[in-house]
Amino acid sequence: MAKKPTAPPIYVLNGPNLNLLGLREPEIYGRTTLEEIGKMVADRAKTHGLSVVFRQSNHEGQLVDWIQEARTKSAAILINGGAYSHTSLAIHDALRAVDVPVIEVHLSNPQAREEFRHHSRISPVAKGVIVGFGAQGYLLAVDAAASLVKRIGA
Amino acid sequence: MAKKPTAPPIYVLNGPNLNLLGLREPEIYGRTTLEEIGKMVADRAKTHGLSVVFRQSNHEGQLVDWIQEARTKSAAILINGGAYSHTSLAIHDALRAVDVPVIEVHLSNPQAREEFRHHSRISPVAKGVIVGFGAQGYLLAVDAAASLVKRIGA
Amino acid sequence: MAKKPTAPPIYVLNGPNLNLLGLREPEIYGRTTLEEIGKMVADRAKTHGLSVVFRQSNHEGQLVDWIQEARTKSAAILINGGAYSHTSLAIHDALRAVDVPVIEVHLSNPQAREEFRHHSRISPVAKGVIVGFGAQGYLLAVDAAASLVKRIGA
Amino acid sequence: MAKKPTAPPIYVLNGPNLNLLGLREPEIYGRTTLEEIGKMVADRAKTHGLSVVFRQSNHEGQLVDWIQEARTKSAAILINGGAYSHTSLAIHDALRAVDVPVIEVHLSNPQAREEFRHHSRISPVAKGVIVGFGAQGYLLAVDAAASLVKRIGA
Amino acid sequence: MAKKPTAPPIYVLNGPNLNLLGLREPEIYGRTTLEEIGKMVADRAKTHGLSVVFRQSNHEGQLVDWIQEARTKSAAILINGGAYSHTSLAIHDALRAVDVPVIEVHLSNPQAREEFRHHSRISPVAKGVIVGFGAQGYLLAVDAAASLVKRIGA
Amino acid sequence: MAKKPTAPPIYVLNGPNLNLLGLREPEIYGRTTLEEIGKMVADRAKTHGLSVVFRQSNHEGQLVDWIQEARTKSAAILINGGAYSHTSLAIHDALRAVDVPVIEVHLSNPQAREEFRHHSRISPVAKGVIVGFGAQGYLLAVDAAASLVKRIGA
Amino acid sequence: MAKKPTAPPIYVLNGPNLNLLGLREPEIYGRTTLEEIGKMVADRAKTHGLSVVFRQSNHEGQLVDWIQEARTKSAAILINGGAYSHTSLAIHDALRAVDVPVIEVHLSNPQAREEFRHHSRISPVAKGVIVGFGAQGYLLAVDAAASLVKRIGA
Amino acid sequence: MAKKPTAPPIYVLNGPNLNLLGLREPEIYGRTTLEEIGKMVADRAKTHGLSVVFRQSNHEGQLVDWIQEARTKSAAILINGGAYSHTSLAIHDALRAVDVPVIEVHLSNPQAREEFRHHSRISPVAKGVIVGFGAQGYLLAVDAAASLVKRIGA
Amino acid sequence: MAKKPTAPPIYVLNGPNLNLLGLREPEIYGRTTLEEIGKMVADRAKTHGLSVVFRQSNHEGQLVDWIQEARTKSAAILINGGAYSHTSLAIHDALRAVDVPVIEVHLSNPQAREEFRHHSRISPVAKGVIVGFGAQGYLLAVDAAASLVKRIGA
Amino acid sequence: MAKKPTAPPIYVLNGPNLNLLGLREPEIYGRTTLEEIGKMVADRAKTHGLSVVFRQSNHEGQLVDWIQEARTKSAAILINGGAYSHTSLAIHDALRAVDVPVIEVHLSNPQAREEFRHHSRISPVAKGVIVGFGAQGYLLAVDAAASLVKRIGA
Amino acid sequence: MAKKPTAPPIYVLNGPNLNLLGLREPEIYGRTTLEEIGKMVADRAKTHGLSVVFRQSNHEGQLVDWIQEARTKSAAILINGGAYSHTSLAIHDALRAVDVPVIEVHLSNPQAREEFRHHSRISPVAKGVIVGFGAQGYLLAVDAAASLVKRIGA
Amino acid sequence: MAKKPTAPPIYVLNGPNLNLLGLREPEIYGRTTLEEIGKMVADRAKTHGLSVVFRQSNHEGQLVDWIQEARTKSAAILINGGAYSHTSLAIHDALRAVDVPVIEVHLSNPQAREEFRHHSRISPVAKGVIVGFGAQGYLLAVDAAASLVKRIGA
Repeated sequence: MAKKPTAPPIYVLNGPNLNLLGLREPEIYGRTTLEEIGKMVADRAKTHGLSVVFRQSNHEGQLVDWIQEARTKSAAILINGGAYSHTSLAIHDALRAVDVPVIEVHLSNPQAREEFRHHSRISPVAKGVIVGFGAQGYLLAVDAAASLVKRIGA
Repeated sequence: MAKKPTAPPIYVLNGPNLNLLGLREPEIYGRTTLEEIGKMVADRAKTHGLSVVFRQSNHEGQLVDWIQEARTKSAAILINGGAYSHTSLAIHDALRAVDVPVIEVHLSNPQAREEFRHHSRISPVAKGVIVGFGAQGYLLAVDAAASLVKRIGA
Repeated sequence: MAKKPTAPPIYVLNGPNLNLLGLREPEIYGRTTLEEIGKMVADRAKTHGLSVVFRQSNHEGQLVDWIQEARTKSAAILINGGAYSHTSLAIHDALRAVDVPVIEVHLSNPQAREEFRHHSRISPVAKGVIVGFGAQGYLLAVDAAASLVKRIGA
Repeated sequence: MAKKPTAPPIYVLNGPNLNLLGLREPEIYGRTTLEEIGKMVADRAKTHGLSVVFRQSNHEGQLVDWIQEARTKSAAILINGGAYSHTSLAIHDALRAVDVPVIEVHLSNPQAREEFRHHSRISPVAKGVIVGFGAQGYLLAVDAAASLVKRIGA
Repeated sequence: MAKKPTAPPIYVLNGPNLNLLGLREPEIYGRTTLEEIGKMVADRAKTHGLSVVFRQSNHEGQLVDWIQEARTKSAAILINGGAYSHTSLAIHDALRAVDVPVIEVHLSNPQAREEFRHHSRISPVAKGVIVGFGAQGYLLAVDAAASLVKRIGA
Repeated sequence: MAKKPTAPPIYVLNGPNLNLLGLREPEIYGRTTLEEIGKMVADRAKTHGLSVVFRQSNHEGQLVDWIQEARTKSAAILINGGAYSHTSLAIHDALRAVDVPVIEVHLSNPQAREEFRHHSRISPVAKGVIVGFGAQGYLLAVDAAASLVKRIGA
Repeated sequence: MAKKPTAPPIYVLNGPNLNLLGLREPEIYGRTTLEEIGKMVADRAKTHGLSVVFRQSNHEGQLVDWIQEARTKSAAILINGGAYSHTSLAIHDALRAVDVPVIEVHLSNPQAREEFRHHSRISPVAKGVIVGFGAQGYLLAVDAAASLVKRIGA
Repeated sequence: MAKKPTAPPIYVLNGPNLNLLGLREPEIYGRTTLEEIGKMVADRAKTHGLSVVFRQSNHEGQLVDWIQEARTKSAAILINGGAYSHTSLAIHDALRAVDVPVIEVHLSNPQAREEFRHHSRISPVAKGVIVGFGAQGYLLAVDAAASLVKRIGA
Repeated sequence: MAKKPTAPPIYVLNGPNLNLLGLREPEIYGRTTLEEIGKMVADRAKTHGLSVVFRQSNHEGQLVDWIQEARTKSAAILINGGAYSHTSLAIHDALRAVDVPVIEVHLSNPQAREEFRHHSRISPVAKGVIVGFGAQGYLLAVDAAASLVKRIGA
Repeated sequence: MAKKPTAPPIYVLNGPNLNLLGLREPEIYGRTTLEEIGKMVADRAKTHGLSVVFRQSNHEGQLVDWIQEARTKSAAILINGGAYSHTSLAIHDALRAVDVPVIEVHLSNPQAREEFRHHSRISPVAKGVIVGFGAQGYLLAVDAAASLVKRIGA
Repeated sequence: MAKKPTAPPIYVLNGPNLNLLGLREPEIYGRTTLEEIGKMVADRAKTHGLSVVFRQSNHEGQLVDWIQEARTKSAAILINGGAYSHTSLAIHDALRAVDVPVIEVHLSNPQAREEFRHHSRISPVAKGVIVGFGAQGYLLAVDAAASLVKRIGA
Repeated sequence: MAKKPTAPPIYVLNGPNLNLLGLREPEIYGRTTLEEIGKMVADRAKTHGLSVVFRQSNHEGQLVDWIQEARTKSAAILINGGAYSHTSLAIHDALRAVDVPVIEVHLSNPQAREEFRHHSRISPVAKGVIVGFGAQGYLLAVDAAASLVKRIGA
């Protein structure tokens, strides 16, 4: 039996075009939809006694708003910034103002793709980064977050 | 007599500050307003038996949303990304997920302007690019789109 | 006794994460909140017989919208673009279309921080720039704006 | 009935290796030969009451000579500089000395190809640029040229 | 009860200076020794019914030798290339010749450190990358490897 | 009635070619002479109960000497380094050794001019920077300095 | 006894200034003249039952013309592009349109000379490259060409 | 009375677009035609007892041919390489093979123009360079050449 | 009948991952194994009356050791440095200390592959370079070496 | 008989280390001393009815002072900035404020020397540049200056 | 009489190709052999009451091993990293883990040699650097080490 | 008893801000004043039978003057160029004209500090360089100079 969630939820924030998951370039991003990932993530979090707030937006400013919200309401932030990962200083700054652990996730391995995806503005302000494992990467990130939350909470 | 529109519409998407057209720096962008261009474009499309969805936004995320909408509802996308052309990987990624022809248009010739306008994030994912002809460029792009739509539809 | 405001207001526009002022990294940005700065700015403007429109947004597109609004409704624009200062060509273009004086303000001194904050897309289209004086910098900018407005109005 | 050509001809100049069109890398350049394009271009020009001088050379200097000839004898120049587009300052300078409209055309979209094709020495001195539409791009360019010639002639 | 290991072992290869773990710069690398990580990794692998070959060397050539050995004898490779991650094309080439999944691990988050650690020669040839979670990252990598091994073995 | 100056003076140091002010390129630097600015500055300082030492030199070494002098004899340093702003590490180092507030001033806005004026060696070691307001900028800087001096003196 | 030539000839094309061979900078290029190399090459080709077309031009366009000719009339192309090797995209494109093997030769070793000779536009479209062996390099290239021609012909 | 020419002639070689002199961009290149410069140059040379061979071509290869000719038939080479100055390694190599003095001339001052004109491939292999004096620069170059020829001839 | 070997042997040194030849990426490196190449090389050397020492190592230091050994014991060095070709200054320095001819060989053509393979640290200290001919390239190199050895020995 | 000097003198300003002329690296700078050049220059100027002020300093600030003096007291400025040519923005700015013709001279040809001498801060603000002719270059520059002075004075 | 060695020894570690000292390029590295330097170093150390461990290897990994050994067994490390100085992050990281003083030595002055020797990976983690004095530099380094050891030991 | 000084003195020249030694940033530069270093240096020189001229200036030109003086009056030059080390080509050129040994000294280790201190204009023209040992570095440099002077004097 899973434990009752008492900690604040993990915020899982997804950036631009991730709502097309399963439709767009499946040879790169796989065939699982974002909705399905949302369910898998919630299930896995439950095994750690944690709940999840799962969102997606194509708007940089919306992501900044949510990070600011998560700043005081979450136990941890999982973020797949999509294309904004490589350009957004606003998200970078928002994450710097956050004290809870931040974990960056990418479905594919950006270093194995185009030059302009090699640098992430999120990585330098993330506790850790997990890339290349597809939907599975979100679950590993939940495990990592749970472990960090417990350690801090202890 | 123009043919009856049966194909899905052409989406014509305009990026930031294009709503100021005719007002802003007329020596660069001309004196035609965006509304006037919208009408010229609709008229020209009608001669090809095509209709047009014509929009403008200053919001990068809004443009991404519209491109995703056009992904399943349009026959072709004409896009003048304005300043986002040079910086937006999110728009780049959204257009990559699109199967209908994408045509990039600019009123002025970016290569003849400042260094930071020389590179477009949209060009590499566009079928073709037409720049420097002012409002006339939109009409050429409609002609090109019509030609591509017919070829594919044949 | 302060003069009656007859000129259009000064628009003071604040970019992403500035709503966290006083909370985020106080060793860099100080402990004054944005709301407090808003009041200080209004008070100082009143001594020049000027009123103030004071806003903040995390959305690049929203800032562009406001600059376009200020284009016809303000006597001057004070802008602290936050992180968008370093990346936004859309804001750059919007400010270029503006005839009233534009003054760029930063609380901290970007040249004394990370490399990626050394270049501003706003500076080249600003009349003047004031950085590094914390909340005080906004007041100096109001003084500068008042002086410019008077000179033009004379 | 087409109008009688009274304006000077449009010069259509083609650079190195374009004589191999239809033979070389058809997946990039299509299967239409340059001779066929020459006929299509002449036909389209005739609908605007214009004639065409259509030439190709692998020699940079020859292209410069022809541009100088076109300087006083043409109504407009359409140029597909081929590989010289990316390296030739001599062609750049020759085109700068020309007062008639210059339109750059490429069959493929150089921005979607190798890095070294991303920059054109011709673009900065062209009125407009049309790329990526294959042979169709020449026809769009003729339309654009006709429109510019009429406007100037008016 | 854990399953009996029948698959080939996971090779866990550690690069230069990782034998100093727990001693060197603990504020960056933590206080767990490499030997302790070896045990944790073996235990975790056992829960997936997998065994582990765990090695460390300061010699680039030795790491290449081991990767070549793992090429035919392992189910997956976990590699923390240490400083060679950023310079070794030889390791890059060796990993390219490997068909089993390769997972790159780093204790710290290289993107949050010096510029010269931002680029990895291993990342482009890895299936996935996990960085920043300290010793915990090795365990996540074992989970990821187990998941990949099962999927392939199915 | 102005207060009696009791604090040490503000040093206002002007770099190369500023003695030509009012004569050189008035469309960039305005028509006020340096001598006139000196008077305006002294007057403004007096309103804060402060005195001013106002100097100009074309010699980099002389400026370094004066900064060292100001190190122990001034309440604050205002410096317009002129062209040395962009090249002088010696001035950079001298200012680093100073504990009183340093304010950088430029008459024009260097970011709106040539590339080689975009980077300042003084900015990273200045408390704040004020550029683009012509002679008015010196007065704003005096206000800023007075404010900083009082805060420290309190 | 040498075999009778039945295959099409090998085209050996020499670029600018190679006609000065034996005269120009002999410490770099040796004392053998181009005419002598032509004879040596013909003799060596004869031992493989092959004939040779041996040409030199200082004109980039001429070299492109010859490559196009060789495209349908040769068994292989040996090319020493001289200075055009480092700058000519036109030659690069011409060679890309060729199906017969292309071998690049240089008398000296460009990597051991000035920086601007380190990169060749020909190398990426050549089957193989032989440099640094003086006139002897041409003979090795003939051997290599003969071997490739036979393999393809088999 | 001028001395009888007994030395070989000075070759004065002019590159692409210089035949347009007096017509093209007179605000940069002046209003004197190339033919007029030819006469002025011949007259000035005669005062030194020297004759002149004066030529122009738009073809890089032609210029290389002429330099090779001048190699054995001239007393000195004056070269205005036009746009080829900035790109041609072939001309660079040809001039390196020349033992007589080479003097580079430009009508305008390339360093005061676009970035891509700042570097000359001819300068490093020239004895001296004279730029910015318009047609007068050719006469100074003749004087310089005469002086060098005499010194060597002495 | 082949001549009796009296000269010192040719050292043929192979760098990292070349022991995988025939197994690794055969579409790039071919299907011949290194052992087979070793035999082919020895046979070819015998036809020149020369013997061969043929070795491979994944260790940069080992290759340096062997080059130092070859320094006094070989007639020539053939080296395929593999990935170390692009990074090793140690091998570069070792080869610089060698007086016998050094020939660099690569199976594939590095200029036609990834950017990071375009520059070789070995090329600048090699007499000549032969790339792109697969196993055949080693034989051409033996021929070249034999020719150089004879010339020196003469 | 030379004409009586009525025009203001030509200022000939020499930068750092030029006082060592004839002593320092004579293979680059020749054996004529600066004093001798001063005399030659005065003599040549006299033939044009002009006088000369001839100075040298190792101090950048001194050169700026002299340029400012020459601004109102000279007919033209000849400047050999020595090493400051490549680094001094202060001299660049001083020369920009000058209306009389400025001619840059160098004894050697900087483009044929080290990379760091390829760019001059003086060239972009000079009317013309003469380099590489040793002491003779000063005389050519006097001739050029005389010609410019007359043209302006006419 | 020299004092009895009680402190741990100084480790003097020499990198690749230094075993060729006295043989390789004596005009750069001098004629003293490494063995002779070893003796000189031991003698000099003895005058400070210190002993020496003196080693050389061509293997990067071996040098890392030795640095780790020296980490706990030496009083100071003198290291001449040879070519690895410029490329080895592994040695950089190993030295960072060391608490005893590290002194970098080079026989020649790398800044006066090729570009790729200008940057050292060892310098940033060394206490001090001594270059350019040949074998003498080792002795100066021993003196410096002795001084540092005493100061720490005091 | 020290030997009587018969050789010319060693010039020890100190650049900008070194007069602040002991006061400025003691955590970097230590607490010894420049005057104290001057005495230590003189004492150490005396043990070698040498005298010292010890000077400091903030003026680049003054340093150039002194180097020229030392050119004929010193046995060796020790120079700590301070910030000018990284920018001054004038000092570079002055030192190149010097035949006596030049030794560069820095108190701190520039390679371990900001990027802009990593490159020295003095190093390429120095015999040797000693950095990072604080005041002690001057004494090592005196020892080195003494050794070089004796060797030359022998």
